[in-house]
Amino acid sequence: MRDSNNLEAIEIGDGNLNYVFRVKDLDTKKSVIVKQAGHTARISEDIKLSTDRIRIETRALQLSYERTPHFVPKIYLFDEVMSCCAMEDLGDFTIMRTALMDHQIFPNFADHISTYMAENLLPSSDVIMEHKEKKKCVETFINPELCEISEDLVFTEPYFDQNNRNEVLDENIQFVKECLYENEPLKLEVAKLKYLFLTKAQSLLHGDLHTGSIFITEKETKVIDPEFAFYGPIGYDVGNVIANLTFSWVNGLANNKIEFSQWIEDTIQETVDLFQVKFKEVWKREAREIFAAKTDEFMEYYLQDIMNDTAGMAGLELNRRIVGLAKVKDITGLDHHQRIKAEKICISIANRFILNRHQYTKGIDFVQVLQEVKEDFQ
Amino acid sequence: MRDSNNLEAIEIGDGNLNYVFRVKDLDTKKSVIVKQAGHTARISEDIKLSTDRIRIETRALQLSYERTPHFVPKIYLFDEVMSCCAMEDLGDFTIMRTALMDHQIFPNFADHISTYMAENLLPSSDVIMEHKEKKKCVETFINPELCEISEDLVFTEPYFDQNNRNEVLDENIQFVKECLYENEPLKLEVAKLKYLFLTKAQSLLHGDLHTGSIFITEKETKVIDPEFAFYGPIGYDVGNVIANLTFSWVNGLANNKIEFSQWIEDTIQETVDLFQVKFKEVWKREAREIFAAKTDEFMEYYLQDIMNDTAGMAGLELNRRIVGLAKVKDITGLDHHQRIKAEKICISIANRFILNRHQYTKGIDFVQVLQEVKEDFQ
Repeated sequence: MRDSNNLEAIEIGDGNLNYVFRVKDLDTKKSVIVKQAGHTARISEDIKLSTDRIRIETRALQLSYERTPHFVPKIYLFDEVMSCCAMEDLGDFTIMRTALMDHQIFPNFADHISTYMAENLLPSSDVIMEHKEKKKCVETFINPELCEISEDLVFTEPYFDQNNRNEVLDENIQFVKECLYENEPLKLEVAKLKYLFLTKAQSLLHGDLHTGSIFITEKETKVIDPEFAFYGPIGYDVGNVIANLTFSWVNGLANNKIEFSQWIEDTIQETVDLFQVKFKEVWKREAREIFAAKTDEFMEYYLQDIMNDTAGMAGLELNRRIVGLAKVKDITGLDHHQRIKAEKICISIANRFILNRHQYTKGIDFVQVLQEVKEDFQ
Repeated sequence: MRDSNNLEAIEIGDGNLNYVFRVKDLDTKKSVIVKQAGHTARISEDIKLSTDRIRIETRALQLSYERTPHFVPKIYLFDEVMSCCAMEDLGDFTIMRTALMDHQIFPNFADHISTYMAENLLPSSDVIMEHKEKKKCVETFINPELCEISEDLVFTEPYFDQNNRNEVLDENIQFVKECLYENEPLKLEVAKLKYLFLTKAQSLLHGDLHTGSIFITEKETKVIDPEFAFYGPIGYDVGNVIANLTFSWVNGLANNKIEFSQWIEDTIQETVDLFQVKFKEVWKREAREIFAAKTDEFMEYYLQDIMNDTAGMAGLELNRRIVGLAKVKDITGLDHHQRIKAEKICISIANRFILNRHQYTKGIDFVQVLQEVKEDFQ
């Protein structure tokens, strides 16, 4: 392809920040994806952003490819001067959120995503990685600008009535006021979680692991777009998966897709439980730090701590996608009447996740909250 | 001094890592201290170390000077090529540990050190510092080699019977075995604290805040040697101060210096309580992060979390100075019989601090442990 004279480049991306092109050799029909980061955001010349994000994304994908080649696209090239990378074309994959809005079922997803998380998250932590190397890795992935986006949109704006970019349905303003803006016990817990995000350099995260960052087919799952990668709490990634499955579940409920919603419940449960099983496997196989290698009690403590963070972070993702600037189509795509109720359901689940986050041990504990809130709203 | 032809340089340091010279203009009698970091440790050509530590030390002193000029020496010059810095000569100051071994009393110490800690630690945290700037600061102070020294000597070796550089008195081997090497509940808590040290990027710490890193006179206190500076848990610095005062207290007990030991008890209590008062003042004056600025409950939670870490880290410092490679003269300087008992007292205090670390709220809570253990050993 390098020597081809017959290349075609078509912009296929519709993201907010970057340009994504499919570059095709019209003779051989081979193609690659070229992703380029500009000095401004794709949606607005007014938003200045460092192009360093493409370095972070590329490096994160390369590291994931080393650990889990089945679950990320292969990187062919990184060009620092052009702020772009070339990667494997996943032409026949669909964005998972889109497929879930069609209520498609992916029986292998829990297995795939739990492997992706266990195999990528734990090995970048001090449990496995030599501590000096880990500190270098922390340095490589210091990501101030993209973290700031999350700090504002996920951890701050949804909880304050002013200085925000929130968009709330008129019918839900009172509900949001009571449940979020004026809910002081909740805000104290949100503050604690925000400081975990700001300070807990546990593992190299994907940092934006929602169903729009996942390409899927019936048989395969590929995680893309780790431009928000940084060293943070493992529960942030796991929690994002749980929260975004929950949006699909609420969408399924609203559309009366019983089989689909049941599959989502099973998938949430299995994602948590399989993550735990695989996490322990990786730990037992690879733990190098001496306390981690020697005591099961510490592993159990560490895993429970991840579960606490997972529940809290899942709650934060649920709230911010309902109230904050960046919405999800699973909910905004519902008819207006259904959407009002769906949003209340999401916020109710979210607040239980946040306030009771120390009570979640197994996958069923998460699913139970969904079922309880569903009954409350029937 | 720059143009003087009549300079004298005398090595005055006896540290393990670096060279410290007093450079004096024999005409004007003015002098400066020049500290230089070699590619190997001063004590052994076999120990290779990055000279980056002198950059970290200089930068940390400069930052502290901006916040608390009374409590650190002034930096005049940093020379990257020569791996050295020139700073204010604190000629008439004494190393605090030495003065405390003479049972000297410093009535202003609690006031000084609590100001130094509150004014330096909190402003480098996400409570006050803008988060993007803080992340750059985290990057500046990534300190893999010196952190590794602490990770090994403080958080690992004292708790394992093998692969260590521990030195234990024959008479105390059985005690150390029971209290440390074979104390599984304790080791679980030590593991948790080790991971806080490895992952909790809360504030820019001094990183080695013992009484050998403090120069003192009757009226003034100067903190030196922040070459271990990095972003870690605030309680690590506060805990080091408490632990090292405790060594002096034990030394005072052994030497029957009642007034001195009473002063140390008062100083521990005041250090904790004044730190809390000043910490809250700085918080209320400067907190910028929105949750921190708006809710007292979060401030109280944050401070209690620091107290938990303080107790735990104080315990770790106590144990490692008794069992590990780097001893303190306050204890090794005692006569053999006294030392045996003093070491047991220190370990007993340490383990209470570690195991009960969530129960310490005020300064008196720390002092009470000292008194209880003293009674146990009478």
